[in-house]
Amino acid sequence: MRHSVIVVICLNPALDITYQVPAVTWGGVNRPSAVYARPGGKGLNVARTLHALGADVLLMGLAGGPTGAGIEDALARLEMPTALTPIAAETRRTLTVVEGTGATTAFNEPGPPVSARELTEFRLRYEKGLSGAAAVVLSGSLPTGPAADTYATLIETATTACVPAVLDTHGEALLLGAAAGPAIVKPNLAELENLAGRRLSNLHGPDLAAVSVAADQLRISGAQAVVAASLGADGLLAVTGDSYWRARPAAAMAGNPTGAGDAVVAALAHGLVLGRPWDDRLRHAAALGAAAVAAPVAGEFSKTDYASALSAVAVHRNEVS
Amino acid sequence: MRHSVIVVICLNPALDITYQVPAVTWGGVNRPSAVYARPGGKGLNVARTLHALGADVLLMGLAGGPTGAGIEDALARLEMPTALTPIAAETRRTLTVVEGTGATTAFNEPGPPVSARELTEFRLRYEKGLSGAAAVVLSGSLPTGPAADTYATLIETATTACVPAVLDTHGEALLLGAAAGPAIVKPNLAELENLAGRRLSNLHGPDLAAVSVAADQLRISGAQAVVAASLGADGLLAVTGDSYWRARPAAAMAGNPTGAGDAVVAALAHGLVLGRPWDDRLRHAAALGAAAVAAPVAGEFSKTDYASALSAVAVHRNEVS
Repeated sequence: MRHSVIVVICLNPALDITYQVPAVTWGGVNRPSAVYARPGGKGLNVARTLHALGADVLLMGLAGGPTGAGIEDALARLEMPTALTPIAAETRRTLTVVEGTGATTAFNEPGPPVSARELTEFRLRYEKGLSGAAAVVLSGSLPTGPAADTYATLIETATTACVPAVLDTHGEALLLGAAAGPAIVKPNLAELENLAGRRLSNLHGPDLAAVSVAADQLRISGAQAVVAASLGADGLLAVTGDSYWRARPAAAMAGNPTGAGDAVVAALAHGLVLGRPWDDRLRHAAALGAAAVAAPVAGEFSKTDYASALSAVAVHRNEVS
Repeated sequence: MRHSVIVVICLNPALDITYQVPAVTWGGVNRPSAVYARPGGKGLNVARTLHALGADVLLMGLAGGPTGAGIEDALARLEMPTALTPIAAETRRTLTVVEGTGATTAFNEPGPPVSARELTEFRLRYEKGLSGAAAVVLSGSLPTGPAADTYATLIETATTACVPAVLDTHGEALLLGAAAGPAIVKPNLAELENLAGRRLSNLHGPDLAAVSVAADQLRISGAQAVVAASLGADGLLAVTGDSYWRARPAAAMAGNPTGAGDAVVAALAHGLVLGRPWDDRLRHAAALGAAAVAAPVAGEFSKTDYASALSAVAVHRNEVS
């Protein structure tokens, strides 16, 4: 048994294919000048980031067909420990066509259907994987089949096994999952707006008072702490029951925001397992999120960017009076 | 040993992925309403057509990576006998985005690199596969690596084994392959124009006299017979040394011309193995080509369309005086 392992759940991984095409001929035949294929999906990005941080990770989830096999091959080359449950249907692909101008067109395939029997098999493996785990991260969308309370029941199982859970999803799965009592929930602004049923930003950017209220409502529904991300230059906002926190990077980094939220989740889970106090935990999360924005590919970051961002994060705390 | 087996060579197969998207948002994120993935490539279409005709087929070629495994899986489901040589690089994909309006945008990945060692392994298997074969079909483009004379040397090996060869490729591989003495070469109009270095059609369509001359030059270079296809309503034109032939379907069918040339190749190989005389061989080839145009997917045809086209093909012969 490994007592420091972080189990990362990715129920709906993807093979992310990128075609570079100097200028696409729409309605014609194109020959990509470069083709890249790499495993993706939010949980996978979290696992890759934790792996790069030197954390002990076990990726669990569902994979099927040749595309699922391709993901397993690529993860094996990264020396990422995996325990993926096989499914009959084929794991989804995403295709991104990047033109010389930077224009980007994405095609996201629907997730594969997952049967009740396959989900049961996954749950059995999940219970084994939790044995001795230090934390579990549940991240991303659910595939077709599992009910919206799937993350909620997985969190309950983790709680029974005394393993703290970090949840990052959206919609009903987020609402039901938060109610199951995870240690940390990481919604982004759009998800909080969706739950609140109203806009939480104005012309000047996020309305931080309104974001705090929405985040605290999610906390009160069952989560121990809520960390709101994707607030741009405003960094992270956290509600931990006894305090409100803000962690701001020195400056918003230019780059690719895809995967920055996954880097924040990875840092929060890592901080939880390392026993970092909240100020330090948020400092690392804001810095790693900023470094991920600066990296061209989701799930990656430069250690130099991370270190430089870390030295410049400002953390503020307001205790609940 | 199976003495009626037709060995079909596909050195550069592909996984053909199709996304149906009601209307693509270029520069945005799209969610395909339907996703199809099937094995493709010219040799594969020939093999599938022969299989559907009830011929005894063995598909040989190169396949690598998860995409290659996906092709093998799909062929196993079709109960197609295969003996594919594994390669280290990944088999190519093609992606076709079909919009509700019918507008079609294709992305064709480059073929994988093939090492000299992998090609040697393929050649060893090929020699074994030829043992007792009734014919061999060499069809499609070469991947990256093998020299342009690859088909020529494979034809020489077949000739040594007394196995007649049918060749369908383009450019230098076609020129060198034809010189190696195959039983039949099937160029299309564009390939003949490329070899002749001039246009062979005018405002009214193909210039059949000029096509005959170009086809006969290819025959004289070493092939025993040349069948020119993709002449539209003009059907097929064949030069067999002692005769010029035309085989015209009753009417040009509307539909998808992709794969019609592969159906012609399949019918020519089948007719060769069955010992059909040229008039009958060309009648079947023209009819199957027409039925393939009427089918929505390359490598497929309706038996009803085939039978009805067959009854209406007109074959004309001019003996060389």
